[in-house]
Amino acid sequence: MGERIVILGGSFGGLTCAFDLRRQLGKKAEISVVCDLDSFIFIPSLPWVSMGYRSPADITLPLQRILGSKGIDFIHEEATGVDPESSVVITGARKIRYDYLIIATGPALAFSAVSGLGPEKGYTECIFTLEQAVRCHEAWKRFLEDPGPIVIGSVQGVSCFGPTYEYAFEVEAELKKRKLRHKVPITLVTSEPYIGHFGIGGLGKSRRIMEDEFAEREIRVITNMAVDEFTPEEVRLNDGTKLPFKLSMFAPPMTGVPAVSHLGNPKGFIPVDDNYRHRDFKNIFSVGVAVAMAPPEKTPVPTGLPKTGFMTVKMARDAARTITADILGKEPPETEPVDVLCLMDMGDTAAFMKAKPVLPPRQESTLKAGKHYKWMKAGFEKYYLWKIKHGLTQLP
Amino acid sequence: MGERIVILGGSFGGLTCAFDLRRQLGKKAEISVVCDLDSFIFIPSLPWVSMGYRSPADITLPLQRILGSKGIDFIHEEATGVDPESSVVITGARKIRYDYLIIATGPALAFSAVSGLGPEKGYTECIFTLEQAVRCHEAWKRFLEDPGPIVIGSVQGVSCFGPTYEYAFEVEAELKKRKLRHKVPITLVTSEPYIGHFGIGGLGKSRRIMEDEFAEREIRVITNMAVDEFTPEEVRLNDGTKLPFKLSMFAPPMTGVPAVSHLGNPKGFIPVDDNYRHRDFKNIFSVGVAVAMAPPEKTPVPTGLPKTGFMTVKMARDAARTITADILGKEPPETEPVDVLCLMDMGDTAAFMKAKPVLPPRQESTLKAGKHYKWMKAGFEKYYLWKIKHGLTQLP
Amino acid sequence: MGERIVILGGSFGGLTCAFDLRRQLGKKAEISVVCDLDSFIFIPSLPWVSMGYRSPADITLPLQRILGSKGIDFIHEEATGVDPESSVVITGARKIRYDYLIIATGPALAFSAVSGLGPEKGYTECIFTLEQAVRCHEAWKRFLEDPGPIVIGSVQGVSCFGPTYEYAFEVEAELKKRKLRHKVPITLVTSEPYIGHFGIGGLGKSRRIMEDEFAEREIRVITNMAVDEFTPEEVRLNDGTKLPFKLSMFAPPMTGVPAVSHLGNPKGFIPVDDNYRHRDFKNIFSVGVAVAMAPPEKTPVPTGLPKTGFMTVKMARDAARTITADILGKEPPETEPVDVLCLMDMGDTAAFMKAKPVLPPRQESTLKAGKHYKWMKAGFEKYYLWKIKHGLTQLP
Repeated sequence: MGERIVILGGSFGGLTCAFDLRRQLGKKAEISVVCDLDSFIFIPSLPWVSMGYRSPADITLPLQRILGSKGIDFIHEEATGVDPESSVVITGARKIRYDYLIIATGPALAFSAVSGLGPEKGYTECIFTLEQAVRCHEAWKRFLEDPGPIVIGSVQGVSCFGPTYEYAFEVEAELKKRKLRHKVPITLVTSEPYIGHFGIGGLGKSRRIMEDEFAEREIRVITNMAVDEFTPEEVRLNDGTKLPFKLSMFAPPMTGVPAVSHLGNPKGFIPVDDNYRHRDFKNIFSVGVAVAMAPPEKTPVPTGLPKTGFMTVKMARDAARTITADILGKEPPETEPVDVLCLMDMGDTAAFMKAKPVLPPRQESTLKAGKHYKWMKAGFEKYYLWKIKHGLTQLP
Repeated sequence: MGERIVILGGSFGGLTCAFDLRRQLGKKAEISVVCDLDSFIFIPSLPWVSMGYRSPADITLPLQRILGSKGIDFIHEEATGVDPESSVVITGARKIRYDYLIIATGPALAFSAVSGLGPEKGYTECIFTLEQAVRCHEAWKRFLEDPGPIVIGSVQGVSCFGPTYEYAFEVEAELKKRKLRHKVPITLVTSEPYIGHFGIGGLGKSRRIMEDEFAEREIRVITNMAVDEFTPEEVRLNDGTKLPFKLSMFAPPMTGVPAVSHLGNPKGFIPVDDNYRHRDFKNIFSVGVAVAMAPPEKTPVPTGLPKTGFMTVKMARDAARTITADILGKEPPETEPVDVLCLMDMGDTAAFMKAKPVLPPRQESTLKAGKHYKWMKAGFEKYYLWKIKHGLTQLP
Repeated sequence: MGERIVILGGSFGGLTCAFDLRRQLGKKAEISVVCDLDSFIFIPSLPWVSMGYRSPADITLPLQRILGSKGIDFIHEEATGVDPESSVVITGARKIRYDYLIIATGPALAFSAVSGLGPEKGYTECIFTLEQAVRCHEAWKRFLEDPGPIVIGSVQGVSCFGPTYEYAFEVEAELKKRKLRHKVPITLVTSEPYIGHFGIGGLGKSRRIMEDEFAEREIRVITNMAVDEFTPEEVRLNDGTKLPFKLSMFAPPMTGVPAVSHLGNPKGFIPVDDNYRHRDFKNIFSVGVAVAMAPPEKTPVPTGLPKTGFMTVKMARDAARTITADILGKEPPETEPVDVLCLMDMGDTAAFMKAKPVLPPRQESTLKAGKHYKWMKAGFEKYYLWKIKHGLTQLP
């Protein structure tokens, strides 16, 4: 019998770890993936689900099938706790012992950060889960029958800004296509100090470029702003402004998930070393959004650092290499600071971004817009789903 | 005998109504155009008259000839009043009964808005009438013999900003051509909150583009500014700045003309419905600058909404269709919110603008600069004069 | 025996005057160049020396050889004073009588303007003399072995901003080439009211362009700023900000050199008329940085007007023509306000600037970036050195 490796989470981080460890360790390890969802979801395409450009089936793969075919155990249960002292994961049904634990849960969404925020309350939509994106698409269809003002945004404390940009650009382009644009004032509200900040202190001249892109589309932009409250019909900003809406989509802040938050910092994110190993527990690792990473600067309205799927995969590959080295009795591998490639949909075009490393100062930083990046984005979705289906992990 | 239709004004709005009604109603209508001018003037070319690029003869057509040939009565008299109760237009010489009245007078120029403003006083030039443009050209010729600072601008309350931009760009280009540019500091003062606002809340990234265009030409721009007073030699701004000048051209605010101001709002502009019918008087219509239209936003320094010849023609065509339907006993036609195409001369290049509708949110908004737009502008002038000469009204 | 013409300074201004006067006057003049340096230094290439792209030998020519071959006397001594009443230049060793004196000394560097500024103290580097540039290159080599934050800038009162821009761009490009950029936060601090001001009130849309260029390279820019103090490890700004550095290069203000400062304004710059003749002393002329020229505007943090080699050569040619006319008993020639062409290295590209005249309003103003300007800059260096070697003075 090999080492017992338990992975919490069946998305980018969890699957990449599972496949890499299986390949690297063969029979030397028993690998289990614990996840409350039964499918891998290609999260970057959720904005497209909300617009009706993708169905849930288009962007999901059954975890049982893709893991089973690689001899990886899939436990379709929600982890409710972890006991790091006795090395045990707790679910509603059982306790799972581990020799190594990888926390790749992604975040919990903190809708309670602002009164009235989130689809549970029903005033604002969200596109961070498949369920939310489907719900947002229903709201979109109702909106089209009786259009009016749209307010889109990121409240204080948000770290993941990209999908909100994409949603604003997509909504604008779709309204133009439907000849409804002139009936819909669109406002973007963000906690970023300026547009194009993205939670990473900007990227080259991203500010200038994004200001131009939003101006070109006549999307009004309100930056450096906190939200006091959402009512069923308006967003109340911290400066007293009230923005009425017929449709509203706002990103919430993120925290660590409850099952592991006692292992993390006050926000529940896991503190790790350069090899993604928990700073206190030698046999616990964490990758992806669950990891604690400090933002590049304190912004006037609080913002966090985004962690994309690309970054998560990089972290996962390094974590897997480290666990493998550990099991094989080798030195932990050297890792590089995480960098990021990103393709952002802009409705009628798309942007390519590269930040190496993610945080400044950077050896490389690029932001370019072009229609071909839109095709690249659509192509990458299919390519990545094909890779995950076959247990391939390398990027790109 | 048909219905008596009286049209006040022999410019874009009046002639378009006259020709359309003649064509649509034939002998069912008697049409009269009342105008104190004896010529149609292609107003968009007035800046070119002020620069000496056009003579008055180049851009005028005799109203008697072009109207007479279509069987339209031309009354070369100034209307001094309208009695809506008895449906009568009053001139110095007579009373003219109407079944339908179309107010297409354009504006009165409110030089009294700022002390010392306007060619009557003689301190500042204006290019809103042919007479002013000719006078401005004389001032230009004198200026060239003894150059110095030029101040160009739009005072508080102005709604028509385009010609002032054109004049600034043309003056700059002409001075360069004459190798005099280094002797002439040029300043543009405007009540717009930012350059590229145009009284319509901007147009895509017009702000960025216009800031660059003025910077490129080293024309100093002072925005969001009111003028306290003009003296023979300087402009005194509301913030205490005094700008000396050798030549000065400032646009005045506009009001409705005295003959019809009692039919309008406090500024004398005529309130109309979507078919350009007076909100109180069923048989009175108004098109063009005479119409009351609210600006898109309240600006810190007051500004109004510009109404271009293109918009006027669109309004006139809808008003004519409505009157025709009325006379033929049909339902009034559906109209669309007015949009605008515009070609702005920029001296060494030109800009194409499209706003659809004029006010945001817009289905379409475009602003592009390019030398070919300059040729288009010159071509359109000849084409439109040819059309008017032959009683054609369709755009483009 | 001809007229005795004494020239203080063996750089752009002094050599241009010497060669032109020799050619124009032949045996009618005895010409002496007094200079404490024994070489002509192509100053525009000093930033390249500081980066190690040029050795001192690459950009210097021996004054004795190039002057001697034209029959011009070279006095390798430092002038310590001038007595304008008796028309005598004083050095440590002797007194030199002149009929005409040309002050082409360039500036003295006022490192005392800010506590801790300058290579003498050792906290900050400078690249305004060959000695400093060589020293700066040594600091650069040490820095590369232990990189950290870099702070580059121009303190209050600086007039010559170009080399500091070049240095920032070159450092950034070189760090990228060496794959060290991500270890080096780079900050540019300047007394200019905005980046792209250059001490000449900007040049077309230089502000927009330079903001973009620095943003693109992720060089943080702090404008409109004075420096309180330099310590061995940090720059203390006037707003309380402390910027730590591992390497720092700051430009100092300039004054007139002590030997002639009693002939100048309070800063020691020489007041001249349009022919570069001293306003009080008929037989004294001055060209180049030594000349008093008022900046185009008072900036919130004091700045001065830069004087480039190109400008200096123009002045020198006019001054020489005037002296020649004087000696031949002719009317002084008409001169034009000085204009400027400039090629600024930007590391991976370069910029071409033209301002005609230097100060606004301008007949012509251009700023363009492009890789071919980098080749032009490198080519011009060789070409100009070849010209000086052969006593040629015409530009370009």
